Amino acid sequence: MPVGSAVRPNIPETMKAWALFGPGDLRPVVKKVPRPGPAEVLVKIEAVAICGTDLEILYNGLPAMIEGELPWGREHVIGHEYVGTVVEVGPTVDEFQVGDRVVAEIHAGCGRCERCRHGMYTSCLNYSYKAKGHRANGFTTDGAFAEYAVNHINTLYKLPDHIPFDEATLIVTAGTALYGIDVLGGFIAGQTMLVTGPGPIGLMAVACGKALGAEVILTGTRESRLALGRELGADHVINVRERDPVEAVREITGGLGVDLVMECSGAPNAVNEALHATKRGGRICLAAFSKEPVQLDAAYMVRNNIYMYGIRGEGNGAVRKAVALFAQGKLSGKPFITHRFKLDELPKAIETFEKRIGDAIKVVVTP
Amino acid sequence: MPVGSAVRPNIPETMKAWALFGPGDLRPVVKKVPRPGPAEVLVKIEAVAICGTDLEILYNGLPAMIEGELPWGREHVIGHEYVGTVVEVGPTVDEFQVGDRVVAEIHAGCGRCERCRHGMYTSCLNYSYKAKGHRANGFTTDGAFAEYAVNHINTLYKLPDHIPFDEATLIVTAGTALYGIDVLGGFIAGQTMLVTGPGPIGLMAVACGKALGAEVILTGTRESRLALGRELGADHVINVRERDPVEAVREITGGLGVDLVMECSGAPNAVNEALHATKRGGRICLAAFSKEPVQLDAAYMVRNNIYMYGIRGEGNGAVRKAVALFAQGKLSGKPFITHRFKLDELPKAIETFEKRIGDAIKVVVTP
Amino acid sequence: MPVGSAVRPNIPETMKAWALFGPGDLRPVVKKVPRPGPAEVLVKIEAVAICGTDLEILYNGLPAMIEGELPWGREHVIGHEYVGTVVEVGPTVDEFQVGDRVVAEIHAGCGRCERCRHGMYTSCLNYSYKAKGHRANGFTTDGAFAEYAVNHINTLYKLPDHIPFDEATLIVTAGTALYGIDVLGGFIAGQTMLVTGPGPIGLMAVACGKALGAEVILTGTRESRLALGRELGADHVINVRERDPVEAVREITGGLGVDLVMECSGAPNAVNEALHATKRGGRICLAAFSKEPVQLDAAYMVRNNIYMYGIRGEGNGAVRKAVALFAQGKLSGKPFITHRFKLDELPKAIETFEKRIGDAIKVVVTP
Amino acid sequence: MPVGSAVRPNIPETMKAWALFGPGDLRPVVKKVPRPGPAEVLVKIEAVAICGTDLEILYNGLPAMIEGELPWGREHVIGHEYVGTVVEVGPTVDEFQVGDRVVAEIHAGCGRCERCRHGMYTSCLNYSYKAKGHRANGFTTDGAFAEYAVNHINTLYKLPDHIPFDEATLIVTAGTALYGIDVLGGFIAGQTMLVTGPGPIGLMAVACGKALGAEVILTGTRESRLALGRELGADHVINVRERDPVEAVREITGGLGVDLVMECSGAPNAVNEALHATKRGGRICLAAFSKEPVQLDAAYMVRNNIYMYGIRGEGNGAVRKAVALFAQGKLSGKPFITHRFKLDELPKAIETFEKRIGDAIKVVVTP
Repeated sequence: MPVGSAVRPNIPETMKAWALFGPGDLRPVVKKVPRPGPAEVLVKIEAVAICGTDLEILYNGLPAMIEGELPWGREHVIGHEYVGTVVEVGPTVDEFQVGDRVVAEIHAGCGRCERCRHGMYTSCLNYSYKAKGHRANGFTTDGAFAEYAVNHINTLYKLPDHIPFDEATLIVTAGTALYGIDVLGGFIAGQTMLVTGPGPIGLMAVACGKALGAEVILTGTRESRLALGRELGADHVINVRERDPVEAVREITGGLGVDLVMECSGAPNAVNEALHATKRGGRICLAAFSKEPVQLDAAYMVRNNIYMYGIRGEGNGAVRKAVALFAQGKLSGKPFITHRFKLDELPKAIETFEKRIGDAIKVVVTP
Repeated sequence: MPVGSAVRPNIPETMKAWALFGPGDLRPVVKKVPRPGPAEVLVKIEAVAICGTDLEILYNGLPAMIEGELPWGREHVIGHEYVGTVVEVGPTVDEFQVGDRVVAEIHAGCGRCERCRHGMYTSCLNYSYKAKGHRANGFTTDGAFAEYAVNHINTLYKLPDHIPFDEATLIVTAGTALYGIDVLGGFIAGQTMLVTGPGPIGLMAVACGKALGAEVILTGTRESRLALGRELGADHVINVRERDPVEAVREITGGLGVDLVMECSGAPNAVNEALHATKRGGRICLAAFSKEPVQLDAAYMVRNNIYMYGIRGEGNGAVRKAVALFAQGKLSGKPFITHRFKLDELPKAIETFEKRIGDAIKVVVTP
Repeated sequence: MPVGSAVRPNIPETMKAWALFGPGDLRPVVKKVPRPGPAEVLVKIEAVAICGTDLEILYNGLPAMIEGELPWGREHVIGHEYVGTVVEVGPTVDEFQVGDRVVAEIHAGCGRCERCRHGMYTSCLNYSYKAKGHRANGFTTDGAFAEYAVNHINTLYKLPDHIPFDEATLIVTAGTALYGIDVLGGFIAGQTMLVTGPGPIGLMAVACGKALGAEVILTGTRESRLALGRELGADHVINVRERDPVEAVREITGGLGVDLVMECSGAPNAVNEALHATKRGGRICLAAFSKEPVQLDAAYMVRNNIYMYGIRGEGNGAVRKAVALFAQGKLSGKPFITHRFKLDELPKAIETFEKRIGDAIKVVVTP
Repeated sequence: MPVGSAVRPNIPETMKAWALFGPGDLRPVVKKVPRPGPAEVLVKIEAVAICGTDLEILYNGLPAMIEGELPWGREHVIGHEYVGTVVEVGPTVDEFQVGDRVVAEIHAGCGRCERCRHGMYTSCLNYSYKAKGHRANGFTTDGAFAEYAVNHINTLYKLPDHIPFDEATLIVTAGTALYGIDVLGGFIAGQTMLVTGPGPIGLMAVACGKALGAEVILTGTRESRLALGRELGADHVINVRERDPVEAVREITGGLGVDLVMECSGAPNAVNEALHATKRGGRICLAAFSKEPVQLDAAYMVRNNIYMYGIRGEGNGAVRKAVALFAQGKLSGKPFITHRFKLDELPKAIETFEKRIGDAIKVVVTP
């Protein structure tokens, strides 16, 4: 189907979507169903999960690294944790066919900056520069709180039939956790890993750590989340309201500290605590956005030869790995999904997620 | 020559040395010349340079990671940047021969902990545990402000004849800089590297960066040091008293920031400034000990996929590389040496270094 | 208990062992129970499996990289896949205690050559040089076809109580497979891996591949072995007597070839077939000893940017990972053990393994 | 200047070029000057060097990995080692400006296959698939035996003013050598490197090895080439007609063998000799195309833990490094250039290169 062809059987001219008009001002709109260009496909959205970053954009606009105008009032559609069905392929695309079930990841780099050329597409130096080819679905280009979305094929993976659409919305969450594990060395079987913060990424990091053979310690403040962490396989859980986490980790690890940390809380003291809970020569991945600068005992980091990795998104093919582990039943989105809403009910879905009504973890929206 | 053999031709029974008796209390003593055990050799000290860490130990005792008693009053000898001549080999040693000129590095790991087994001997989990085999020359075992010192062969490299002893005391400094470059990726030709802090390690990092083909920016506060940095090849120098370093680095790098940073200043704001001067997807090595916890814009590190590496010492064979680059004339200790003293004058040598008398950079002590 | 102490309660003076007297000439002997030195422990052997390399040594003497005299007639004891119980610890050892259940790996490097210093202890440049500290249990030092053996603590890992001793003899086999996976990148979830040759290492590589989330294809000639491979999780099996393996692999992988290969057959054409079955940019691990030089289409390897890794033993902490995966139930030795014999019956055990009597895979010997 | 705009001041409508009409049948033609598309620029060719692969294509058509029709008779232009001046930029291009001096590398991957997405653009799985965006300048798309060529910006680097155009044609050769050094570990200072084969890539590998601080041994058969190798810094040269290279290398390296090998000869016995000249735990890069399958002592590779890397092209940003080392004067093309011809004289230039008339090494063609 060539670009610009007038007639598209089975695809409507327009679709329902939710657009941003101002801080917190999300309104239903009718938009034209977009057409896929070269290396793109059109996806019918089957399910989309709400992420903390969606709230961030909703209230504050796009993250700092994204240059240019605010999203308000230009019918920008957010929503970036989604799955769907391919309904149209753009020119040159034979990697996907109409009817393919697919899961989307967020970042397609420009393909022409130094970082992209070296495979670091989530660190694209042309981030948000659409004319040069960069796309971050739901961030800089339209996302999935809509009936359809266009995707670059680099941001799509085929989804096996036996993984339900709603559960598959957690694959991109697993992608972030697995990207973190990747920068920590990847081959973590037999290593001890501390996960700080039992939000969706932290809990998924627990599940990933167990799927890959690590011994996992989870810290947090809410008992219900810690209980879920234990269900997902955490070998030890520590409620930091009850115990000093550094001391507790040292005790569990025979005084040595953990080999690896996934910092998923963004809490102000989390980075420094993670540092002091790390074994000499160990590694820390920062996967959460702390709102304020944090304190860092840099001398401790030097003296103990500790490495610390900030990660952006779900790079280095992590989503491909996530799909495989979901397909093998080693990971699942099921334990994370607490609520389901229809697209028409998006404001209620967002409120549920935001206020953690009914102890919400993941809230999934379907057409 | 077996261990414990009574007669050692050409080696005296006793030697002059300087021992610590209390904070700042360094006194001349006469000690027995030690005997090398298996895998050890006895080295006649030919030159030793004074390092900032020597002052640290002199006034405060051993660094935090070193457990056990204070060094005071047990005739502990410090001094760890040294070169010498092998005068006796221990049992099983055929790697060195009497007469070999050698340069020492600091760390011999225990060889039996998890870190040592994986080659991370500067991150030994039995640090300071002598019975298990750990040695850190001049830190946990006797160093080189003496006429002789025993060394494990793992801490020695042969020194080519054409490198003068005094200049060779800078090889271990280069080892630290090269270890930093190693964790930053090693193959740095064509990359931009910011060096913060023109102390001996920082200045040597400049020289190493240039020797390996990087473009180097140096920041600091003292013009004389910055001038030396320029002499050593720095492509750009920035006096942070005159210009905001982040802004200046951004300007030099076309707004992108540098690929790599070697943080060698330990200044309170240096880590965060380094972070903001780093290109998305770039890397930072922390090679200095900051006295206080520093502020870290962790969210920036996450958003920009930046990695940060604390390094301990001169690990991963970096001193071997340093020897080679000195031998090839690509690095030299000469520009660093501002003062020379005899061993008998050690207090004056230390004072010169400590108070930067005559703009002292490296002060070398010879027998 | 100091070295050389005369009385050792609960430890006999002598023990039964099998020693080599000439090619194929294995005889029962009585040897003194050895004493552990510093960093060593004495292990009471609880189970030992027979490996193809045992046969190699039995008939041909030590492998080529091991210099020095033949093992004949010096009471050398072979047997290197073993587990046991610590019954005595040497000086300075607090890493293990009497009563600890342990699994042994083969290589303790010298700790003083360039390779050991960098963590490559299975590539020790002082291989077989005992005075310098190298040990390869059952190769260059006495092994486990005996009641007791001394081990350097670097070659021991604690064995959880719930793993039976006999099954745990397969842990070192898994160590080799995991070392191979490590050099192939380690983080293999979602990648396709071809395993060629369903011997114990190949079959274990299948199990490891599945435990770590890869898609695994196994090739071989014997249906019973291929069936076991399928039982262990292989997604596809190819009998190379029936189908061209390159063609079959291409078909399974949509024409692209596999990401990774573990070559475990040593068959003369296996390396070249592996090469042609590999995806552009893929990697191959050679884990088997082919008796003759093989043909290699080097130009194909260049044109397709393929990397090939020879691996020696079970390096880089792979056995630690194997213990963890056994402990978690993700790997097991049970499916591999077809026969059990007592130490007194060693010749019969060896014959059973050698002639594959009763389709023998792993033959385990217990006291 | 938009694509398709009719008028292009200062750029002619047509240009001179040499096209392939059949094996060995190269003819002058007049072609339209191409127009740059998005992310492309038009380059006026200032100099192009002849490479062995040009001869391969000239006589045999495109290499095996390139699918599709033969180049004969479709006006295909070869020539891939070139430099020039940007004369027009395509839509969205701000990375280059008209007037920029540039050096071209060969491969722009498709940007959408698994390999490209991970930065392995020279291993593109859509190699030669132009509609999907793959380009290999002078291989699958028109090259530089012409007055103008279009380049994707990913294949261009800015060339400093002080590097003459003709000398800069060797930058892509250095890119291949540096890519080889990259896969060998990159940080090669202080390591021993054997280079086999003193063709242009081998000789450039010698120069690169020295620029980066390695000790280099060069083997070959022609004294004039070995002499040039020595001039470029080789520490040792071995004429394999006079000495067994394995024995000679072992002698130079104290029996241990070299750390690294760059195999640049393609000689039938070179791979196996390289293997036996490599230190246990060492690494070999295959950078030459051997015409026949070679013998490989695979068991030696396994026993000694040796890794072998085939490299395609000049991947992983190696040309960027090459430009930097040329700019710093650490590498130069000058010693390689033996002959210069005008574009009109191309057949004579090729003959000179092919028959090594006047001991030709690099033959450069200018407009």
